[in-house]
Amino acid sequence: MSNEQENTKKEALITIRTLLESGENEELLKFINDELYAADLAEFAYDLSLEENISLLNLLDELMAVDMLKDMETGLQEKILAAYDPETIARRFIDWMDSDDAVDILNQMNIELRDKVIAHMTDLEASRNIVSLLQYREDVAGGLMAKELIKVNINWTVSQCTDEIRSQAENVTKVYSTYVVDDQEKLVGIVSLKDIILANARTKVEKIYSDEVISVNTYTPAEEVAQMMRKYDMVVLPVVDTLGRLIGRITIDDVVDFIKEEADKDYQLMSGLAEDVEITDRVWILSRARLPWLLIGLLGGIASSRVIGLYEGELGAFPQMAFFMPLVAAMGGNAGVQSSAIIVQGLANNTLGSTNILPKLGKEFTVALLNGLICAALILGYNLIVGNSQALALTVSIALLSAIVFASLLGMIIPLLLNKFQIDPAIATGPFITTTNDLLGLGIYFSIGALLL
Amino acid sequence: MSNEQENTKKEALITIRTLLESGENEELLKFINDELYAADLAEFAYDLSLEENISLLNLLDELMAVDMLKDMETGLQEKILAAYDPETIARRFIDWMDSDDAVDILNQMNIELRDKVIAHMTDLEASRNIVSLLQYREDVAGGLMAKELIKVNINWTVSQCTDEIRSQAENVTKVYSTYVVDDQEKLVGIVSLKDIILANARTKVEKIYSDEVISVNTYTPAEEVAQMMRKYDMVVLPVVDTLGRLIGRITIDDVVDFIKEEADKDYQLMSGLAEDVEITDRVWILSRARLPWLLIGLLGGIASSRVIGLYEGELGAFPQMAFFMPLVAAMGGNAGVQSSAIIVQGLANNTLGSTNILPKLGKEFTVALLNGLICAALILGYNLIVGNSQALALTVSIALLSAIVFASLLGMIIPLLLNKFQIDPAIATGPFITTTNDLLGLGIYFSIGALLL
Repeated sequence: MSNEQENTKKEALITIRTLLESGENEELLKFINDELYAADLAEFAYDLSLEENISLLNLLDELMAVDMLKDMETGLQEKILAAYDPETIARRFIDWMDSDDAVDILNQMNIELRDKVIAHMTDLEASRNIVSLLQYREDVAGGLMAKELIKVNINWTVSQCTDEIRSQAENVTKVYSTYVVDDQEKLVGIVSLKDIILANARTKVEKIYSDEVISVNTYTPAEEVAQMMRKYDMVVLPVVDTLGRLIGRITIDDVVDFIKEEADKDYQLMSGLAEDVEITDRVWILSRARLPWLLIGLLGGIASSRVIGLYEGELGAFPQMAFFMPLVAAMGGNAGVQSSAIIVQGLANNTLGSTNILPKLGKEFTVALLNGLICAALILGYNLIVGNSQALALTVSIALLSAIVFASLLGMIIPLLLNKFQIDPAIATGPFITTTNDLLGLGIYFSIGALLL
Repeated sequence: MSNEQENTKKEALITIRTLLESGENEELLKFINDELYAADLAEFAYDLSLEENISLLNLLDELMAVDMLKDMETGLQEKILAAYDPETIARRFIDWMDSDDAVDILNQMNIELRDKVIAHMTDLEASRNIVSLLQYREDVAGGLMAKELIKVNINWTVSQCTDEIRSQAENVTKVYSTYVVDDQEKLVGIVSLKDIILANARTKVEKIYSDEVISVNTYTPAEEVAQMMRKYDMVVLPVVDTLGRLIGRITIDDVVDFIKEEADKDYQLMSGLAEDVEITDRVWILSRARLPWLLIGLLGGIASSRVIGLYEGELGAFPQMAFFMPLVAAMGGNAGVQSSAIIVQGLANNTLGSTNILPKLGKEFTVALLNGLICAALILGYNLIVGNSQALALTVSIALLSAIVFASLLGMIIPLLLNKFQIDPAIATGPFITTTNDLLGLGIYFSIGALLL
């Protein structure tokens, strides 16, 4: 965020706070209406107190309140909704939401509260939609889709389509395409609003629709949905059931959020955070998310101490050996992470290709060898210049080269293996591989040292 | 990708290869037409040889060829286009592209070739659009936008809008909204296709348009564009010049790619890759992207050797000190990366809040202290159980606790400082901070050791 934006945001925040405190509600609503969108308010929610957020939500009209609430992170949503009873949650919020957003919020509640909220809904069609969506897991197409969509029968005329759009206009706020179904409700094609505008009112849908429509099944994994929408530049993706009947649609905004969350997750795996945490979470949750990786590090450290312990005699006789332990260990770790990151990204972006992967791995190996040689030569030069013993200098350089090459090999092979067994290869770039490579580097270093010194 | 998809892909690839080789062009075109989209072909391009890609592109009709080409990574695009002369590039590809995609490709060429290609274009309006887009940097809104859009005058009737949509239908393939401008071409609002369908043909635009339209300037940074489209759930964003005149639009598919690329960049920074590299790049480029971080690691390793060297006497007398060096160093590094990752993500997602950041940092500190205490207690237990000396056990635990706490503090402060000075805070999670924390951990370990042993 630029500093200018930052300042505008701070000023708006002060205005909201002041008006909230002095109870000048009309003034506040006017300010919000003129200057802000619901998504801005959702951002401000992180700076406002719980009481301020609730006063603000109570003041806003239903559609704005719903939009503000749905744009917050789940942790904050939960805190705020805990202040409302089930009936108010149903009538002020859930009744006014698109079915996919409503389901996201209901899924965070315990089942008892969830059912109470649904029982209090007044919009019966909406509650039926929600109940049918709640059956899907959150990580499949069914869990991402909304029920609100516009479908037309292939035998209709354009003017019947217009009528259908009119009758659905209130439920479906953003319309990009109209789906074409046959008499069995099976998805057979798509007709764009542009084509509806340009066609004559009496033209039959079957004359103007396109049968090239990409759809997914309710059980298609969310990750595949995101990949498809990105690959085919889609703004909305229809979802069908096992019989091919159209039952929902997924919009790009949900997928954009999903892509961002997945990237965040990879980033967190890599930085050694085991759960999806926000800085707004409780201390214990934050601590728990980090402990697993710290414990792996601890175990790795203990293993290192065992490896080094085997060479206690050599170390006592030749304490300079200890000087370059951190260097060899850390460089192996760095090179390993670099290799695995390249492979993980190649797998994620499908640029690795699915056949003929060996020449690419060969290239990776050449890179590791080249960089290993450069680093080994540099450290050899350093050791000779500062006057360390030739045996030590040679040990460090040979160990460094071997550590870099072996760590790179492991860094390539581990993500490929994980991917083969359908495990997220991003795990391979986390503290796990760093720790393994630390150990590997030390083992190599001391074996060579024992030979040469 | 699931194994099933993987297999379908492999089969399609074999079919394409076989038909290409045997020269059964009609067969091949029919297969592609029935089974595949251009984006699929772009994915296959990584598995096909250069010659196969070129034969395929020559076979496809212009629109399909253009779509296949634009979906590839730039490295592969360059290799393929190098096989064509400027005139063919202009007439087979650039003439048929949307202006934003054309500019992306032209921007990779040297200026001489670029100008030759543009001179050979036959679509004069398209070439004018391209020349006007080439003036913008790639990382601002002007560099992301396309010129193709539908705009209507506020004084027009709905039927005039329909005529305009008809006349632009060929240029603007996907239409989501129509922009409303005044007589000075200034953007004043938006009218959705849904509203056009539902309105009477003689209704004036001014009666049905919405003046709530979010737009950006040509010089708005791309990152801000992506944040806005994600925040406000937008599918297309209009771009205006300094006088507020509508001159282009940015579509969500470009922004989705941008978000993905930014996430990839953070991931690469963290894994110690200094440039945006693909596994398809040359060995020397891959090597160069990694060397800077390896060299930082090397310098850090040399610095470590200096720190340890100060304690050579102690090490000779008490070689067990060396056993836990890797543990203390690595754990400091891990804890530091965890803290900085939380801060970097909080900054990127705006969940850190802009005011009142101190309590959140206090919480971070508590987490570091808690985890440090747990780890220190565990290692103390281990050392006492395996019968290491009490002095060593105490040294390791105190050093471990201090290293975790200090590294976490650094991990919080450095990204915040970088962000303050408008430097990408993601740098703080890379090898730089690991190396610093390695050093810090060793320094603490030996100072405490010198006191206690």
